[in-house]
Amino acid sequence: MDRVAVIGASMTKFGQRESWVMDLLAEAGEACLDDAGVAPDEVEHLYVSNMASGEFEGQTGIMNALAHDLDAMPAYSQRVDQTSSSGGAGIYAAWQSVASGASEMTLLVGGEKMTHQTTGEATDVIASITHPVEYKHGVTLPSFAGLTARHYLERYDAPRESLAKVAVKNHRNGLDNPHAQFRKEVDVETVMESPIVADPLRLYDFCPITDGSAALMFCPESVAEQYTDDYAVVTGVAGATDTQVVHEREDPTVMGGVVDSGEQAFEMAGLEPEDVDVAELHDMFTILEFLQMEGLGFAEPGRAWERVEAGETEMDGELPINTSGGLKSKGHPLGASGVAQGYEIYAQLVGEAGDRQVDADVGLACNVGGFGNCVITTIMEAAE
Amino acid sequence: MDRVAVIGASMTKFGQRESWVMDLLAEAGEACLDDAGVAPDEVEHLYVSNMASGEFEGQTGIMNALAHDLDAMPAYSQRVDQTSSSGGAGIYAAWQSVASGASEMTLLVGGEKMTHQTTGEATDVIASITHPVEYKHGVTLPSFAGLTARHYLERYDAPRESLAKVAVKNHRNGLDNPHAQFRKEVDVETVMESPIVADPLRLYDFCPITDGSAALMFCPESVAEQYTDDYAVVTGVAGATDTQVVHEREDPTVMGGVVDSGEQAFEMAGLEPEDVDVAELHDMFTILEFLQMEGLGFAEPGRAWERVEAGETEMDGELPINTSGGLKSKGHPLGASGVAQGYEIYAQLVGEAGDRQVDADVGLACNVGGFGNCVITTIMEAAE
Repeated sequence: MDRVAVIGASMTKFGQRESWVMDLLAEAGEACLDDAGVAPDEVEHLYVSNMASGEFEGQTGIMNALAHDLDAMPAYSQRVDQTSSSGGAGIYAAWQSVASGASEMTLLVGGEKMTHQTTGEATDVIASITHPVEYKHGVTLPSFAGLTARHYLERYDAPRESLAKVAVKNHRNGLDNPHAQFRKEVDVETVMESPIVADPLRLYDFCPITDGSAALMFCPESVAEQYTDDYAVVTGVAGATDTQVVHEREDPTVMGGVVDSGEQAFEMAGLEPEDVDVAELHDMFTILEFLQMEGLGFAEPGRAWERVEAGETEMDGELPINTSGGLKSKGHPLGASGVAQGYEIYAQLVGEAGDRQVDADVGLACNVGGFGNCVITTIMEAAE
Repeated sequence: MDRVAVIGASMTKFGQRESWVMDLLAEAGEACLDDAGVAPDEVEHLYVSNMASGEFEGQTGIMNALAHDLDAMPAYSQRVDQTSSSGGAGIYAAWQSVASGASEMTLLVGGEKMTHQTTGEATDVIASITHPVEYKHGVTLPSFAGLTARHYLERYDAPRESLAKVAVKNHRNGLDNPHAQFRKEVDVETVMESPIVADPLRLYDFCPITDGSAALMFCPESVAEQYTDDYAVVTGVAGATDTQVVHEREDPTVMGGVVDSGEQAFEMAGLEPEDVDVAELHDMFTILEFLQMEGLGFAEPGRAWERVEAGETEMDGELPINTSGGLKSKGHPLGASGVAQGYEIYAQLVGEAGDRQVDADVGLACNVGGFGNCVITTIMEAAE
């Protein structure tokens, strides 16, 4: 079967933007068309990853609006929602559209506009992911993260500083990313002294609220070769769910959706965790980077913190993680984040990552919805 | 290639329900598992067609919640939104998931809970589909329908009564549908004397606001044969967009998305409009039944009303349309409607339509989002 290629990518500046979601989606969509050298009327399917344009802006039908704004009609267009993993789900939807033969040119654009809301308003929308009973008792995603972090640190005798080092690393990487929301270095002391949000996690353990958009262009490999020699191939992609009720999970340090989607993606690609050269993990909270490293097989259970402490996930380490700066420094516009992970992996594989460039033939992205409720793992490889 | 089969279907009672959207989705999902004889842990992909659970109920993440409620974890789960054509888009997503080889057992559940809102609140959410400038000037979907109906009647010298006859026919068909919201006959006089909503359209030209859910089970045909001999095959499915700004369209009586998706679906199936034995059209407004008949090639431009007047779309006519009662009598819970169209076509093809049964080997469903902004056309055939 013809493999599914990625032939272009784009992302907007992430941060506090004076644009509505439709402007952000159009900005990334147009840039991706340019990057891929694809005309709007060549697009056959258009997927829009977005969690909550209706709740945040009172606008729905954004899939149709974007087809209109990009002049891509009558392209088929659909919105993909999987809460904070909507972007990864968009990659999977785009892959399916090409692999099924339904489309020979699929544009995926993910975006979210959030900063016009107060933190409380935005948090309320995000918390609507959780089970109504948990939600009613005041549980939000950050409080799950705090409970999980405390459990992890005690159980595995890990130093609190190891979590801080995730934030420090990702902030340092983000310095070299012109699209990142925060381009400033922080040190362990700054993280450890920042205000407590959900004990033991502090302000710098959390990603910010962000506006932004990112896009990727997919087509069969036989078509890709007509456009460029430098493309990436999606060789593994899979998604999985875990319980909606978080307290029903057997082990709070194991995210079942990470484990299941990772195993399926590696099997599809015929690869092992050791084959991965660069990874983007969903560091909405620093603790999540540990849980994904372990769930994906990049570290033994309870041992991810040691790899971080040893510097093995730094830019010049054995497995650079979040070269983009991650959600922590780059920002987390919900529907855009998974697509932006794909942008970073694509850029690393085709050698367009600028000052962040590492040597990579195989890249992996893991996009987490809710508190691991839905997870997508994608593996891309550079074209041979 | 293995064709994509439908091996089970279900729908809840449509109407004013004392259930939230999660209850409705679970009710249809469980009934579909039963109907197909599929265990929850056999489901590999789960798609949830829904437009606005966040806006209507303040709950998101319903794709994960349904995987949890059906005990289908770790099945991959995603929400499909294409506004009022979310159900049709779900059929397309499910088809792609199977045709791409990503899933060998895909459950699609569409649902919406609306009646707890006032008509004004619900209309506000639905109107958020329209272009913000049109919306700001007070244009809603019913007003587009009124303007289009007036233009059609004058241009084609069609009697106002021909529109009323669409409502009369669909109400009569709905009498025999135990799932329909309104099971009562109406006559032309009742329609013509009902209150004006958007001149010349009156109350009985419009579908109601509805709660409900419907589901379909998809798998490769080679797998289907292990479960049943009576299944249907999706032989054509395609979607297309038209302008978001309705007044930019060249001819208000031509829905480009209907024409484009129809042509593609017929080409994929290798069939012509004459081959269709039964059709479900999106009669959100009576005028839409005319526009879809013409856009899909079931009538010449401007002549659909003559076929309706001649009784050719009645249950015993040459091409029965909306044997289910249509949106008009059955109701229109946004995300469920396209899936419920699929339910009716499936039921007709496998001989499970009860008192509504017609003789059919080929069925077609057309699901319209917005005012033709996004359209999906699906063609199913009975297994040979």
